Amino acid sequence: MSDLIELRDRVRVFTEERDWSQFHDPKSLILALVGEVGELAELFQWLPADAAVDRAREERLHERTGEELADVLIYLVRLADVLDIDLADAALRKLRGSSDRFPADDFHGRAPDRT
Amino acid sequence: MSDLIELRDRVRVFTEERDWSQFHDPKSLILALVGEVGELAELFQWLPADAAVDRAREERLHERTGEELADVLIYLVRLADVLDIDLADAALRKLRGSSDRFPADDFHGRAPDRT
Amino acid sequence: MSDLIELRDRVRVFTEERDWSQFHDPKSLILALVGEVGELAELFQWLPADAAVDRAREERLHERTGEELADVLIYLVRLADVLDIDLADAALRKLRGSSDRFPADDFHGRAPDRT
Amino acid sequence: MSDLIELRDRVRVFTEERDWSQFHDPKSLILALVGEVGELAELFQWLPADAAVDRAREERLHERTGEELADVLIYLVRLADVLDIDLADAALRKLRGSSDRFPADDFHGRAPDRT
Repeated sequence: MSDLIELRDRVRVFTEERDWSQFHDPKSLILALVGEVGELAELFQWLPADAAVDRAREERLHERTGEELADVLIYLVRLADVLDIDLADAALRKLRGSSDRFPADDFHGRAPDRT
Repeated sequence: MSDLIELRDRVRVFTEERDWSQFHDPKSLILALVGEVGELAELFQWLPADAAVDRAREERLHERTGEELADVLIYLVRLADVLDIDLADAALRKLRGSSDRFPADDFHGRAPDRT
Repeated sequence: MSDLIELRDRVRVFTEERDWSQFHDPKSLILALVGEVGELAELFQWLPADAAVDRAREERLHERTGEELADVLIYLVRLADVLDIDLADAALRKLRGSSDRFPADDFHGRAPDRT
Repeated sequence: MSDLIELRDRVRVFTEERDWSQFHDPKSLILALVGEVGELAELFQWLPADAAVDRAREERLHERTGEELADVLIYLVRLADVLDIDLADAALRKLRGSSDRFPADDFHGRAPDRT
């Protein structure tokens, strides 16, 4: 079974049991998502870039990172639900679009310029 | 099949075909995630809070929102992969933790205070 | 005296006294900024949009908001310092650019479309 | 004269000339701030951490970075204005608080742990 659908349904039940749908308009959910992304950023901000993967293997940081990634995913799934967007389908389509936009031969070893 | 696993594998292939793993340290991926969350925020920032769901049903905004949610999910899945975190499992565990932390009876119709 | 210059100098002294310059590369500082913006978002996420200004007059939230705005400003000033950017000058120039880009007559009462 | 006060006043005039106050409730302004922080993040996301300062000296990136820092400051100043917060005062007080919280001797060369 789709785990994104399962998660969506569980978050729906969690929300309804608490009557929290009233708080879940899109702008509020995006702010909540921003809050969780901020907590994720705080875990890594002062780690040396080239040591971050190793440091994140340590139990305490690994666990905390998992919690923050989970929070981001939960609000993302809830936002998609409220907006009636099929998240798995959107992601696969976006990835196909990126494959066309960034041909492997042209962008080999070269990150897209964002300036 | 798990759609988060499928997406993880497709993002892996996409990344390897372009030799972009070298750019995907955790701090860089979090910044990329922040960029996509920012694009999502821009779509909604000036919409009236109580009209946002309806406005997001219009074709153009619905499509653009789907693209931005997709981008957020793609970087989130990639970050979890790089950090060796099982995203679906982390989300379900977090949700169970939140169910314990916010008992439905105590928090009915009441959002947690963040101050 | 310019308060942005004064703040920049005080943040410099604060940083040097702790030998924290080693942590203040641009990407790390942007992540720190993201963390503070996230804390700001959390203060407001569940407030009704049309009640937020009034609620933010209450002492506890007013104080907490001031602290988070301060944190965002401090990291912004530090980032500008590290990147050798004159923040006050950049802001005044940007504002003049926006005045040209969004003529008051054309955009009266109409927010720019972000889709 | 205080440059933060001058900037606040200019942003006020800019907003009033366009009748955009109606869009500037706190949650919308935070989302706009998030959008600008996202654009800033995108400029740096794929740069090697230890090369970012040098790369940001190049004209094109220096100019783009100045614009994004400016946008962040503008929305921050506007948000403080709407919430009736004295940004310069809040930042100086926060910095004094941080000086107490992180004594230079105890935190010399050591970043605060965020886990």
